Amino acid sequence: MDIRFDHAAILTVDGEDRELSDATLCVKDGRIAYIGGAEGAPQDYSPGRTIDAKGNLLMPGFVNAHTHLPMTLFRGYANDLNLQDWLFGNIIPLEDKLTAEDVYLGAMVGAAEMLLSGTTCFLDMYDFADTIAVAVEKSGLRAVLCQGMAGDGGNMQKIAKAKEICQRFQGAAQGRITTMISPHAEYTCSEEFLLACRDAAQELGVGVHVHASETAKEVRECMERHDGLSPIRYFDKLGLITDKTVLAHCVAIDSGDLETLAARGAHVAHNPGSNMKLASGFAPVPALLRGGINVALGTDGASSNNNLDMWEEMALCALMHKGFSGDPKAIPAKKALRMATIDGARALGLEDETGSLEVGKKADLILVDTQGPWYYPRGEMVNHVVYAGHSADVKMTMVEGRILMEDGRIPHVDMPALLDEFNRAALALRAR
Amino acid sequence: MDIRFDHAAILTVDGEDRELSDATLCVKDGRIAYIGGAEGAPQDYSPGRTIDAKGNLLMPGFVNAHTHLPMTLFRGYANDLNLQDWLFGNIIPLEDKLTAEDVYLGAMVGAAEMLLSGTTCFLDMYDFADTIAVAVEKSGLRAVLCQGMAGDGGNMQKIAKAKEICQRFQGAAQGRITTMISPHAEYTCSEEFLLACRDAAQELGVGVHVHASETAKEVRECMERHDGLSPIRYFDKLGLITDKTVLAHCVAIDSGDLETLAARGAHVAHNPGSNMKLASGFAPVPALLRGGINVALGTDGASSNNNLDMWEEMALCALMHKGFSGDPKAIPAKKALRMATIDGARALGLEDETGSLEVGKKADLILVDTQGPWYYPRGEMVNHVVYAGHSADVKMTMVEGRILMEDGRIPHVDMPALLDEFNRAALALRAR
Repeated sequence: MDIRFDHAAILTVDGEDRELSDATLCVKDGRIAYIGGAEGAPQDYSPGRTIDAKGNLLMPGFVNAHTHLPMTLFRGYANDLNLQDWLFGNIIPLEDKLTAEDVYLGAMVGAAEMLLSGTTCFLDMYDFADTIAVAVEKSGLRAVLCQGMAGDGGNMQKIAKAKEICQRFQGAAQGRITTMISPHAEYTCSEEFLLACRDAAQELGVGVHVHASETAKEVRECMERHDGLSPIRYFDKLGLITDKTVLAHCVAIDSGDLETLAARGAHVAHNPGSNMKLASGFAPVPALLRGGINVALGTDGASSNNNLDMWEEMALCALMHKGFSGDPKAIPAKKALRMATIDGARALGLEDETGSLEVGKKADLILVDTQGPWYYPRGEMVNHVVYAGHSADVKMTMVEGRILMEDGRIPHVDMPALLDEFNRAALALRAR
Repeated sequence: MDIRFDHAAILTVDGEDRELSDATLCVKDGRIAYIGGAEGAPQDYSPGRTIDAKGNLLMPGFVNAHTHLPMTLFRGYANDLNLQDWLFGNIIPLEDKLTAEDVYLGAMVGAAEMLLSGTTCFLDMYDFADTIAVAVEKSGLRAVLCQGMAGDGGNMQKIAKAKEICQRFQGAAQGRITTMISPHAEYTCSEEFLLACRDAAQELGVGVHVHASETAKEVRECMERHDGLSPIRYFDKLGLITDKTVLAHCVAIDSGDLETLAARGAHVAHNPGSNMKLASGFAPVPALLRGGINVALGTDGASSNNNLDMWEEMALCALMHKGFSGDPKAIPAKKALRMATIDGARALGLEDETGSLEVGKKADLILVDTQGPWYYPRGEMVNHVVYAGHSADVKMTMVEGRILMEDGRIPHVDMPALLDEFNRAALALRAR
């Protein structure tokens, strides 16, 4: 059904960062057909529904550039630990017990959380990617899926399975799913394994998604193992870093790493909340941006965040780098909003389809209720969204022209029943 | 009207940090009369309303330990500036044009924002405190009000006015208002002025609220003016620091400052969001806590935050100190929750009346809807509240047994009309 919005404020987040007021946006066949004054709207257009968006704001849906969707299962579990103790001491032992049914429930809850908070697209890395694809198909979200994997020469069947998943799901869900190859990290994969991942990505023509330089400890140990090479220089030596590579975290990097990322045109997925919660530190995002590197935003998994709320990541990003650098101009609101939307789409190779409101792009957008006092006085809407807004202000989430969430309700999902089943599965898993 | 809650989860935030499930809480004559199993509830008690709180959480309302309520008027204005440029270049020139009517509208919008996000009590510092008292009276909130002031020996009439406001409003609004004396900061007040403030507070028996060591620049310049004394040691020399003093910020402090604060039993109001936004830095909160100093949380004014949302401050506090210190145990969730509630009440001298759910205390509490996916899996409720919850989850805010906000509505306030009038006043002020 085609939908027309009238009398909306609009943040396009396009190349010109246009801000419109009292504007009309027309959705036709899942794409944006018109943005502008009501008087210029196309004549040969009969929307199935016309929405009076007075007092509301249309903007692109958020692109979450790094998450592990089913980790909602571990939310609230194992807190106040650093990355190593949290991951190896607590999370991986539970992950070893996961079933596809657990993963499906975790992914469905994560998808619901994304829809409620205005995320329309995400990059995921996790085992059971084929099961996550079912949740993506069902939820209506757009996603880049990666079969998460780690190992050495004895685990080549994992790469074969990841390739098979790429082949099966590239373009699935009416084109809403694309794929990448995703070795977990330097400290969990052997060189043979990483080289085979590189070859698989090249063969399939897809990108690579990998954790890199999340902590100083990781970098130190990598340098000991690999002749003084940091994870980023080591990955580069192996040919893993290209303009289709998305590196999550990049907290503990130096100027040489930065030059490598810039030279290759690689993308960084910055996770402010997770990096703080696990005490990993502050990624040098202002320096990355000055170096011309594309930096997107992610929540990481809900278990180290502890939610999938991109509004929070956007605000954290805009605030923490000011505090850490002492520069109040570090990451202005406008840039934080771009990082959470169009820069994320660019990292995922989807900038021609999503991430901004432009005629011809897919209608992946959110309608934000700006009646709350935190959106007043009027004017400065980008500042209000980034510094004062909340995920609960999202009143509608649309992907490819389909309304997937409206007024807190997700059609076709019985939330109380889903949460009940999810809760039983998550608690049983911890006791297993 | 007495109100009884049944089947609630409860976080008492009392001395034992009790967590109850399926519990009953009875409010009688504005105070908490009972907390426990339904079977033990008092027999001689006929509530006017009984609320089935299944799926919801009762916890103390937030105590915002440092704000400037009417600064909602400047929300979104003058961004990406450091404290000095923001304050002297942009904010003070507008503040000089403020009328009592502007302040009233700003305070009413700020009060609404607090009620919507679950704050029940706040410490305010601003000019026109008598006007702010009208907004407090009308909104039903609890507040410690300070007439904000700055100057030198030629401005003694300001102190006389502040004293008069203290005398007039101490115990006003049926006891919900108390007062403090509030010189703005070392860099805006002369020694003569500060000494007169000290004398006024002593004479009235009230506390002192002051900005201190917000930036390194402030400390450096204070040391130049005052024989190498930091603001905190200078205030201490003047006798301004006692166990009834609340010092806002304390970002740029050293171990000597910390020892002074500990020795005097003074309280710190920590403002994570504002300190990051103005690029002031990170207050050494873990060290303050190790030193036995009481640290409360505040939003600061909405113009440097840009909202009055204590949920955000609580999460920021728990996250930023982990990231900055490299210690994942820095400020655990449980402590962040205490800082946002009972530790704030203690700073304000109100710990016998509010800040936790205990029999005999005032019924200053919030009911939180925990049906959102971010509160699942069940268990670990404190972690869910601090790391995953949102202000929009608050479905009811109660002060002294009165429901001041329920399901997003504030009885007796016409929000659209208030916001419209506020908006016109704020925009007119910027153009004046």
